[in-house]
Amino acid sequence: MKKDCPFCDSHVTAQIFAAEKGFSAFYNHSPILPGHTLIIPEKHAGSLFELSEEEISGFFSFARKVTSFLTGIYRSDAYDWSLQEGEAAGQSVNHLHLHIIPRKPGDLPEGVEWFGKLHEQQSLAIDDAERIMLSEWEYMEISRALKEKWASFIGRQ
Amino acid sequence: MKKDCPFCDSHVTAQIFAAEKGFSAFYNHSPILPGHTLIIPEKHAGSLFELSEEEISGFFSFARKVTSFLTGIYRSDAYDWSLQEGEAAGQSVNHLHLHIIPRKPGDLPEGVEWFGKLHEQQSLAIDDAERIMLSEWEYMEISRALKEKWASFIGRQ
Repeated sequence: MKKDCPFCDSHVTAQIFAAEKGFSAFYNHSPILPGHTLIIPEKHAGSLFELSEEEISGFFSFARKVTSFLTGIYRSDAYDWSLQEGEAAGQSVNHLHLHIIPRKPGDLPEGVEWFGKLHEQQSLAIDDAERIMLSEWEYMEISRALKEKWASFIGRQ
Repeated sequence: MKKDCPFCDSHVTAQIFAAEKGFSAFYNHSPILPGHTLIIPEKHAGSLFELSEEEISGFFSFARKVTSFLTGIYRSDAYDWSLQEGEAAGQSVNHLHLHIIPRKPGDLPEGVEWFGKLHEQQSLAIDDAERIMLSEWEYMEISRALKEKWASFIGRQ
């Protein structure tokens, strides 16, 4: 837990829909496409290099499980993973996180890249009317539903 | 080994500069930024879901080690990881691969995203004069030098 870290804040931690071995998954409050989820270590870590070998294994094993879950829920057979570390790489929140984005053919207009949208979204000011952000109740409802679906998904494993 | 797979082809396998537990690293023949490297399983696998839990651990542990190596060699403290699976996600070669791209402040013009460049590059035809591609000798020289540097890096671990 780190003070002033948005991913350590209860606003996010209350919406975690899946967790395993010290790692959590939560829905992006401003998804660039449906299903856009973030995987984080529960403990505050800024870098992949702060994890032990065992944690590296746990992180990506959990991420793969969540990817399988999301591609099922969102009826997709493709996905993007992106991890950015360091300011020069576009890391916006200094708490290690992996983006998982389920993809479908034609989900973005020709020539539009999800990665560009990701950065566009991150650079928008909080009060910018163009910001694509779920309302608080939508965010909570989706997170609650994902949590239920995850419990049933894990029960079937 | 799969016939007609560019990443199983000896053109690539001859240039592998680092390998560990069934995973290999090779330099991108058309790097979008200096240091742009790909990590692959040596065996042909199209999907992350074809790997065992142990292989997942080996894949990302090796990728982290190569990232540490590359950020040292290219004097960078930031990096991007990208993994795309499925055609709708932009996967161009059907052999599982993780992109590692060392980043520096100002390495791309304002507003230009490495991810867009990645797709731009992939969509260019082989004979397109605009294709940014290292000459064969450059590619071989860089791969040879990286191989030497990797041996020394691993010796220091």
